[in-house]
Amino acid sequence: MAQTFFPPALEKLVEQFARLPGVGTKSAQRLAFFVLSLPEEQTREFANAIMNAKTVIHCCPVCQNLTDSDGPCPICQSPKRDGHTICVVAEPKDVVAMERSREYNGLYHVLHGVISPMNHVGPDDLHIKSLLERVSIGGVEEVIMATNPDTEGEATAMYLSRILKPFGAKVTRLAYGIPVGSHLEFADDATLSRALEGRREM
Amino acid sequence: MAQTFFPPALEKLVEQFARLPGVGTKSAQRLAFFVLSLPEEQTREFANAIMNAKTVIHCCPVCQNLTDSDGPCPICQSPKRDGHTICVVAEPKDVVAMERSREYNGLYHVLHGVISPMNHVGPDDLHIKSLLERVSIGGVEEVIMATNPDTEGEATAMYLSRILKPFGAKVTRLAYGIPVGSHLEFADDATLSRALEGRREM
Repeated sequence: MAQTFFPPALEKLVEQFARLPGVGTKSAQRLAFFVLSLPEEQTREFANAIMNAKTVIHCCPVCQNLTDSDGPCPICQSPKRDGHTICVVAEPKDVVAMERSREYNGLYHVLHGVISPMNHVGPDDLHIKSLLERVSIGGVEEVIMATNPDTEGEATAMYLSRILKPFGAKVTRLAYGIPVGSHLEFADDATLSRALEGRREM
Repeated sequence: MAQTFFPPALEKLVEQFARLPGVGTKSAQRLAFFVLSLPEEQTREFANAIMNAKTVIHCCPVCQNLTDSDGPCPICQSPKRDGHTICVVAEPKDVVAMERSREYNGLYHVLHGVISPMNHVGPDDLHIKSLLERVSIGGVEEVIMATNPDTEGEATAMYLSRILKPFGAKVTRLAYGIPVGSHLEFADDATLSRALEGRREM
C-alpha cells in the first residue's frame, strides 16, 4: 500500500481487515470506516466476539470438529448418533453442510485440510492418526469419504481408503453425479460421465 | 440464517462478520474460520485494532476529518497549508483521494454524507453549519466542491454553493471530463458532452 493519509490507529485497523482472505485494501477501508461508524457498544461486541470465539472454541478431542464444550463435542456425545459410521470431511464447514442435508446420522472426523504437495501439506499435517486410532479400536463399520470432489480431495480420499481398509471397515465415497436442480446442458463432461457410470435402476 | 451447527461463540462471530457491508453469510463464515485459524496473538491484535481505532479516532473539530490528535488535525494545524482554500468532500476517504493527487495544498471540510432525501439525510444531518462558520469568519477565498459527480453529490454541491456565495468566497466545482488513461469509446454520453463543454485551448 502506498503512502496513506489516515491516522495510525485507523491505518492499523485497515491493515488488519486487509489481512482477511478475499479482502483487498479498498474493501478493508470500507470495513474500517463501517466499524468506526458503529456505536461504541457494537464495536465492543465485535471485538469481544473475536476474542471470545478464539478463547472458547477448540477442536473436539475425538472428531476434531470445532466445539466449545469441554470433552467431546455434542455430536460425539449424542446417544442418538450411529457410532458405527464415521464421515471424513476436510473442514469444519463441511460438517455443517452434511448436517444440513439431514440425511446423515453417524459421527464425523475432520481432517483440517487435504493432502496437497503443492502447498506442502502431507498426511502428517492432517488429523489422520486420530482417525486411524478411532477405526483401529473397532466398532466402526463404515467410513464415508466426504472430501471435496477435486484433485486434492480425491487424492486424500484415495490415500485414506488405502490405509483404512486393513482395519476391516467398509470405506465408501460420496456419489458423483449431476447436482439436483441443475441443467444437463451445463454439466461438465467429467460429471456427466460419472453420472452415467453411477446410474441406478429406477 | 437457517439452523446452523456451529458452537454459539463461533455463530456469534459469524453474525458479527455478516453485519459488515458487502459480507454475506458464506463470506462471514470464511472470515470467522480464518480468524480462528490465526495464532492467538494475531487474533488479539485484530480485536485490539478494532477497539483502539474506535477509542482513539474522532472528528477534527475544525474540518471534521477523522484524526487521532487532540485539537485540530495535522492538516488543519500545518503551517504549510494554504488556509485560504477549503475543499469540501463527502467522506474522510475522499480526503485521502485528494491528498493522493498531490495537487491540492489547501484545507478540507468533510460533510460526512451528502444530502439524500431518499435516505432521509437533510442538510442538518451533515457538517454544514461548521463549514458556514469557517467561511463566515473570513479569510477563505475559495471553496472547492469535491463531492461525487452523481445526483446526490451534485445536489449537495449546488445547495452549498447557494448558501456559501453570500459570504463572498469563490465557489468552484471539480472539472468534469474524460478520465486520464481511459478510452473515448467507453466514455458515457454525459461525460463526453461535459468534456466537450469544458474543452480548453492547447
